[in-house]
Amino acid sequence: MTKQERAVTTRRDLIRSAAVAFDRYGYAQATLSDISKQAGVSTGALHFHFANKAALAEAVEEDATEALRSVVREAYRSRESALQALTDASHGVLRLLRGNIVFRAGFQLNADFTWESGLDLRREWHTCVRRFVDEAAQEGALVDDVVPGDVTVTIMAVMTGYGLLGREEREWFSQRMLTGFWELLLPRIAAADTVDALVPGGGPVPPA
Amino acid sequence: MTKQERAVTTRRDLIRSAAVAFDRYGYAQATLSDISKQAGVSTGALHFHFANKAALAEAVEEDATEALRSVVREAYRSRESALQALTDASHGVLRLLRGNIVFRAGFQLNADFTWESGLDLRREWHTCVRRFVDEAAQEGALVDDVVPGDVTVTIMAVMTGYGLLGREEREWFSQRMLTGFWELLLPRIAAADTVDALVPGGGPVPPA
Repeated sequence: MTKQERAVTTRRDLIRSAAVAFDRYGYAQATLSDISKQAGVSTGALHFHFANKAALAEAVEEDATEALRSVVREAYRSRESALQALTDASHGVLRLLRGNIVFRAGFQLNADFTWESGLDLRREWHTCVRRFVDEAAQEGALVDDVVPGDVTVTIMAVMTGYGLLGREEREWFSQRMLTGFWELLLPRIAAADTVDALVPGGGPVPPA
Repeated sequence: MTKQERAVTTRRDLIRSAAVAFDRYGYAQATLSDISKQAGVSTGALHFHFANKAALAEAVEEDATEALRSVVREAYRSRESALQALTDASHGVLRLLRGNIVFRAGFQLNADFTWESGLDLRREWHTCVRRFVDEAAQEGALVDDVVPGDVTVTIMAVMTGYGLLGREEREWFSQRMLTGFWELLLPRIAAADTVDALVPGGGPVPPA
């Protein structure tokens, strides 16, 4: 490994360790010495990469935001309808909550009393959801008496809820739980001629 | 005021001040000196009532649990159907989140990284929701293809989401938002002969 490759690896390890610490203790209680120890580097090496804990939290949020964008892009790219893309994107977000500690920590930092930053993962996700719902309305894929804003708000609340509840009981991150929600919602909101084609469990998982 | 009345008032003021501090800063960052100052008493007086911060947090959770039980009892007592009672109880919980700082703090302590107790407001609420949904199923008030567990899980996720999102944007605590959710859900889950009688905005608010 060249010196530069090593630096990249160390930086990545530190972000991951920070995510583990934030996920476990919250921002205020996570300590730099825990983070450097977990990453297997000295606190000097940590400070070479990150000025302080806030800089680490920002890096976690940046990586989490990138992961979110990638899930949304993929759902959008392979979409057959806006409602299916929205369903797929929500499953993608849950998959990240389940398996990507940096994303999970970023999502939770967003709700952490003790941390505030300019980045806002939740606001970005909100914008994506609203865009998918508006597109579904434009496609004529929503039932007439459904208010698009109600759909957006419900999806935001549900996903926020899963994110929080899953912290204590991992079951809330399971695909089964979210599929149950879509099995309730899709037949209610999707126009009659589109509903049969929709897959509440989400489309095929893209290769990692 | 007798000495005993004054003690009761002071205790109540301290619980309220603690709730304000927990709501604003989270458990870990709230300080006893802030709490006693806000309640207008000395730290000595605080320690007369509460041994430490944990004892204050427990008192907040106890009062919050009492408020939850009272809302659920009222919804149950005045119910015409289990689904209406569930709708009413959810509006009651949102009303508490909106207007009762001790309940809001208790609900949030439940999700606080830095606080853990034996009481679990969320688990109690979960049990109530499940009971209402099971009763609706027994009444034959659910559509055949609806899985009761999916309904329970969706309501839990939605209410948890509102509770968290409302901390930053009070709009999430509004009756309008929750009514929009029930307008989506009720026509999907309620048996055809019951749906017209249901009020998504909740029944009349009981006198305080």
